[in-house]
Amino acid sequence: MERSMENEELSKAFVQSFAMKGGDGPHSYAQNSSIQRLAIEAAKNLLHCAISNHFDPNAISSSSSTSPISIVDLGCSTGPNTFIAIQYIIEAIQTQYQSHNLPTPEFQVFFNDQVSNDFNTLFQKLPPNRNYFASGVPGSFHGRLFPRQSLHLIHSSSSLSWVSKLPKEIIRDGSCGAWNKGRIHYAGAPREVVDVYEEHYKKSLEAFLHARAEEIVRNGIMALQIPASQDHVIDDGNDEKLYPGRDLELLGSCLVDMAKLGLVSEEKVDSFNIPMFFPQLKELKKLLLSNEDFSIEQMELLDGKFLSVGNVEMYVSHHRAALEALIEKHFGEGVADELFSRYAKKVLEFPEIMDMQNLKIVLLFVLLKPKLHA
Amino acid sequence: MERSMENEELSKAFVQSFAMKGGDGPHSYAQNSSIQRLAIEAAKNLLHCAISNHFDPNAISSSSSTSPISIVDLGCSTGPNTFIAIQYIIEAIQTQYQSHNLPTPEFQVFFNDQVSNDFNTLFQKLPPNRNYFASGVPGSFHGRLFPRQSLHLIHSSSSLSWVSKLPKEIIRDGSCGAWNKGRIHYAGAPREVVDVYEEHYKKSLEAFLHARAEEIVRNGIMALQIPASQDHVIDDGNDEKLYPGRDLELLGSCLVDMAKLGLVSEEKVDSFNIPMFFPQLKELKKLLLSNEDFSIEQMELLDGKFLSVGNVEMYVSHHRAALEALIEKHFGEGVADELFSRYAKKVLEFPEIMDMQNLKIVLLFVLLKPKLHA
Repeated sequence: MERSMENEELSKAFVQSFAMKGGDGPHSYAQNSSIQRLAIEAAKNLLHCAISNHFDPNAISSSSSTSPISIVDLGCSTGPNTFIAIQYIIEAIQTQYQSHNLPTPEFQVFFNDQVSNDFNTLFQKLPPNRNYFASGVPGSFHGRLFPRQSLHLIHSSSSLSWVSKLPKEIIRDGSCGAWNKGRIHYAGAPREVVDVYEEHYKKSLEAFLHARAEEIVRNGIMALQIPASQDHVIDDGNDEKLYPGRDLELLGSCLVDMAKLGLVSEEKVDSFNIPMFFPQLKELKKLLLSNEDFSIEQMELLDGKFLSVGNVEMYVSHHRAALEALIEKHFGEGVADELFSRYAKKVLEFPEIMDMQNLKIVLLFVLLKPKLHA
Repeated sequence: MERSMENEELSKAFVQSFAMKGGDGPHSYAQNSSIQRLAIEAAKNLLHCAISNHFDPNAISSSSSTSPISIVDLGCSTGPNTFIAIQYIIEAIQTQYQSHNLPTPEFQVFFNDQVSNDFNTLFQKLPPNRNYFASGVPGSFHGRLFPRQSLHLIHSSSSLSWVSKLPKEIIRDGSCGAWNKGRIHYAGAPREVVDVYEEHYKKSLEAFLHARAEEIVRNGIMALQIPASQDHVIDDGNDEKLYPGRDLELLGSCLVDMAKLGLVSEEKVDSFNIPMFFPQLKELKKLLLSNEDFSIEQMELLDGKFLSVGNVEMYVSHHRAALEALIEKHFGEGVADELFSRYAKKVLEFPEIMDMQNLKIVLLFVLLKPKLHA
């Protein structure tokens, strides 16, 4: 009960929302999401096996043979990656029904992202010959989005490092020493700042799992691909040149430079924090294994080859697509051109950051099933 | 079977989509929909009684007490009217559950409109303290939008005069004499044009009902408010000064004037037709009563007091909100200012058209239940 109230408060705090760059322009997510695409391709076979081993058509369709199968992609952005993931999922489920000699059900697919996501672009890009009924669901996945026991398969790829709105001690001078002055991320920050981020990540993940546990049907499955950092790099990070968030730290240094030149206000830089966290892999596994709502059926690291981007332009575009909306909401419109042009120059000085493997970032594939409480 | 195929072809033809003016600006639907709001207010009591008499919680929730109630508003536009209608519906259903001493279910509400509708604005305007899970569904309501037997209550207010894409004979010189040259609507047009519109309306309505019959649960209900024209006005219309569509005819004359001045191309005017039809009331009732999919539980004319707009500016804004997107899609961006400024002058010459009752337009409230086929 206490935990439930805490989650509720947490989800109330997540009013402010963050989403990828909308539209279809040169800086849009739609045009700059090939890394995420490769992550989905890397997970394809795991997803197929997971559905084959754990999605039981007889158990799922027990209520009625005409019942549709409900699928959600959480943190879908504007496509096309979400459409590819959904296609793989539906193909795998159809195979399951065929192998059980059962008629193929109808599919209802929910595409979820923050309220500020560009759903107009998403809807215009829906595959014209899709074999499912499509629906957009706006809102933070750290709170409830769906009725009780209404989802059969929950999917989320690479979105769970977003923790939404951070607690206030990060953005103001207080007694706990967690004010993240002169930085926009916990990377390279004092231990107190990292601790606040880490604690907030735990609460976010718990709130996420608890909300999903209410929404998933008894025999449903949840497949997540969660970004994490290789073990020990949070502790040792400050001694090395490369660690998770080093790219965001570099972006922050561009903003600090711009503040020195009066192009943005110093106060705005001090109060800006990218709500993204990469837990240590062993910590993430511990969090997942100790959660009360889901049992872990499978955990596997994805092959990391997809985590590298070939050239600076593409790399900067990826970051811009993911962060421009968030940055312009905080700093006002018009700072992105200058910022990302400066960022491109810094990336050229540190080309090794373009490979996320160098940054010690990994992607954990997890398959979960709801625990059946008495 | 034949009919089903015809419906499928019809729904394939409805690819081109029409929607209200998005955003929140001075010409947006969100700021110019007070007539539609009044229609919803006028229907409030009828809706409440209909739910009280025909929405049976015991029959609806037979599958499971945790099952959510699914509601859709078809042709929702960008709000706020759709939120008001949904609120009335949910309040009435909650009252039903209370009076049956049953626990209140969770509600899942689907907001549907054309793909080109501004769902981003709709989502940003969702009531923050709503007691339902919200979802947007893009697509034409003349085709399937939802899985089989998945909706408990279907609602649509004032949207069913839209018939989506008209057949080709209307926009080109052919043998049947139905080319609607020099006009943008059937009002004031030769019999052949009216016939094509009317036939297309019948097919559209049939396709609509057939799709909904597949989507509604066995004991679900559908409440529609359908615009119609008072009897006989189609036949006698050309002899009178005021008849349904007279406002659109006047708007068309502005476009013809603009074509004469070279401000728009004559060919564009000749190929533009507003996909909106107001059936004669007796014809509409006949169509509804003879349909194979739904039984008619209640038909009632709404009190017409809401059909009048006080001043020219507001009247023109209403038309602009409804038609600007459609017009600019056909004629290109930038014609709306000139067109609606000319329209305002013409309306001043014929102020009587500002009262839709003068145009002999009425709104029919209909309550339908799916026929139970063997």
